[in-house]
Amino acid sequence: MAPIPAAPLPPELANYLAAPRFAVVATLRYGGAPVTVATWYGLEGDRLLLSMDETRVRLAHLRRDPHVALTVLDDEWSRHLSLLGTVETLREDRGLADIDAITRRHTGEPWPDRGDRRLTAVVRVGRWPTWGGPVEMSGDG
Amino acid sequence: MAPIPAAPLPPELANYLAAPRFAVVATLRYGGAPVTVATWYGLEGDRLLLSMDETRVRLAHLRRDPHVALTVLDDEWSRHLSLLGTVETLREDRGLADIDAITRRHTGEPWPDRGDRRLTAVVRVGRWPTWGGPVEMSGDG
Repeated sequence: MAPIPAAPLPPELANYLAAPRFAVVATLRYGGAPVTVATWYGLEGDRLLLSMDETRVRLAHLRRDPHVALTVLDDEWSRHLSLLGTVETLREDRGLADIDAITRRHTGEPWPDRGDRRLTAVVRVGRWPTWGGPVEMSGDG
Repeated sequence: MAPIPAAPLPPELANYLAAPRFAVVATLRYGGAPVTVATWYGLEGDRLLLSMDETRVRLAHLRRDPHVALTVLDDEWSRHLSLLGTVETLREDRGLADIDAITRRHTGEPWPDRGDRRLTAVVRVGRWPTWGGPVEMSGDG
């Protein structure tokens, strides 16, 4: 089945995501409680890519429930953007092309551990509830 | 009912949390999908404090399901610590004492908006699945 086309992301949001930023991603554990972890991410058109070693328990989370939330932090870490998404594909990263592209965004080098078996979650961004430009960090959360 | 005493946090973890760091917190929306947002936090003994304006939809999330996950980012934003918690009390921040203490950690000043009505979620930290010292940021999430 072909991937479901999504409406294009607004340009300001796409531009924000196109920079090599850090994100924190939330998935759901067995039982439904959330769990968060900091991560790099990649882009493939309007999709976000999340790369995981095949041993990550987070893969089991995503196979059970594809909902994810991400907060994408600004270069200067003082601003942030939160968005809601769904994993539409979980694919093997054959040849490590996905993690190489993600790592190069941050370090300029490919992923160092060439023997890794990794999977890539392709995330369709569904909503960005806080969008109005990235939000300044504050106590208000 | 008195709050349930929790085991003290390991000193290295307590020290990490005691610094004025940024966090990303995940809660559950209606329907159970996660949502994340960047936030400051405070400390009250071994509890984390999250302060929210009374209009925040996140309060409805927490009243329905008290599970939260936080990723607490390092000063230099290159390391992070993830932990799982539960809101054990949601209290009115009368006099804005909680948000003042949280804001002073970051800016040295009290919260500027003195007319705000705010609530404080008191979070009991239950687990820190990634702990082994804060983890370096990488593509591995």
